[in-house]
Amino acid sequence: MSDRSAPERLLSVLAAFDHAHPALSLTDISRRAGLTLSTAHRLVAALTSWGALERDADGVYHVGLRLWEVAALAPRGLALRQVALPYLEDLYEATHENVQLAVRDGTEVVYIEWIAGRSSVGVHIRVGARWPLHATGVGLVLLAHGDHALQEAYRERPLEAFTPHTITDPVRLRRTLAEVRRTGTAVSSRQVTEDALSVAAPVRGADGTVVAAVSVVVPEADARTPALIPAVRLAARGISRGLGWQPGARVLQ
Amino acid sequence: MSDRSAPERLLSVLAAFDHAHPALSLTDISRRAGLTLSTAHRLVAALTSWGALERDADGVYHVGLRLWEVAALAPRGLALRQVALPYLEDLYEATHENVQLAVRDGTEVVYIEWIAGRSSVGVHIRVGARWPLHATGVGLVLLAHGDHALQEAYRERPLEAFTPHTITDPVRLRRTLAEVRRTGTAVSSRQVTEDALSVAAPVRGADGTVVAAVSVVVPEADARTPALIPAVRLAARGISRGLGWQPGARVLQ
Repeated sequence: MSDRSAPERLLSVLAAFDHAHPALSLTDISRRAGLTLSTAHRLVAALTSWGALERDADGVYHVGLRLWEVAALAPRGLALRQVALPYLEDLYEATHENVQLAVRDGTEVVYIEWIAGRSSVGVHIRVGARWPLHATGVGLVLLAHGDHALQEAYRERPLEAFTPHTITDPVRLRRTLAEVRRTGTAVSSRQVTEDALSVAAPVRGADGTVVAAVSVVVPEADARTPALIPAVRLAARGISRGLGWQPGARVLQ
Repeated sequence: MSDRSAPERLLSVLAAFDHAHPALSLTDISRRAGLTLSTAHRLVAALTSWGALERDADGVYHVGLRLWEVAALAPRGLALRQVALPYLEDLYEATHENVQLAVRDGTEVVYIEWIAGRSSVGVHIRVGARWPLHATGVGLVLLAHGDHALQEAYRERPLEAFTPHTITDPVRLRRTLAEVRRTGTAVSSRQVTEDALSVAAPVRGADGTVVAAVSVVVPEADARTPALIPAVRLAARGISRGLGWQPGARVLQ
């Protein structure tokens, strides 16, 4: 552990917290961060004093409000979500199905917002959840609009199968991505779970780059898929405009 | 600056970002954090490598997705918001007015969620915005349910007036807080702006402690105030149940 720099050690304390471990004792933190108890104690004290961590009455630490306030400035996190939320709410009102907003981080999708449909398929998504790009509708959109190097690199790695319907053949993936670009929509049917289908469309930033994807997830048996496509595209287009995108001469994909 | 510890210097880089400064150059960061350019460069590199900061094509830094993912674990930030959002949406559907969720940090209210009513009063709230406790409905709720020491300390400081209707008299504030506890609701009329009124109610955690407040903000001329009270209380109670609160023998305040 001595080869890590001071910033790395401090950040390792924050990295000790995840969805499975949202509350940790000092001993937990020291073990998970690979720090001695005395180093962990010193760093946790500094983070708590600043407000990045908070300590409850039982001596358990969790992530603090001040870190959340700083993180709310992340353009791909809460800031994007703030622009998107009214459009996601409208999409939810129009469909009453699971509505999701995701961005790409490396070769994964990260969900930054979702509204759960009350009577819809049980989709186990939470804010901050990650998923590989090739299986989900949002992932296919983000991969299709990623640069050439990303797509080449992605096709060269083994494509994990989640169901027998997941795309695992690189040739089929390339054809699918071309179709996503051509139609402006990705449909992922039974590729994540046997009972669900998602329809996704790209969200563009002010410069026209695809910065996020919106999707609706419905039961696979649902016959309304064609009717969902315009609604999802409309929501994606609304968010894009909210981000400063102007259609101009560019064809909306 | 040499008297600051290594953790303090790293956190000062994060603290350089705020709502007025969501994107900063390395020079900006060095100046705002009070660091030499070389120290700022080293710390920013470590934060960027970890994902706490991201650098765009123009060399400008902003808060990164990974910090947002960690911050999403904050029980008083995104985690509380996740439990609350369906109830806030229902409250919005029922009222079509501005709906807000806030927590207390020291002597201030911090808004952690809001849904903007489309045809309602222009309320300039954003996630992470702060406001003193004595003027807003949510602030009065959080102050009324804060401990005795907080209330004593708060009354001893000067109470800033935002309009001629803001409570600035300590005696009137004490009476108002007693009324908030008795009725389970706070009504702040024209105390923040001349044209707005808010109705707020407390959200309780599993142990019965008040952890947040919900409010609806409407035009002051709106005659529906009495009708809003049960809706706001119902939403607050729903979120409290979602957090594990059980009414039991305790009177809901």
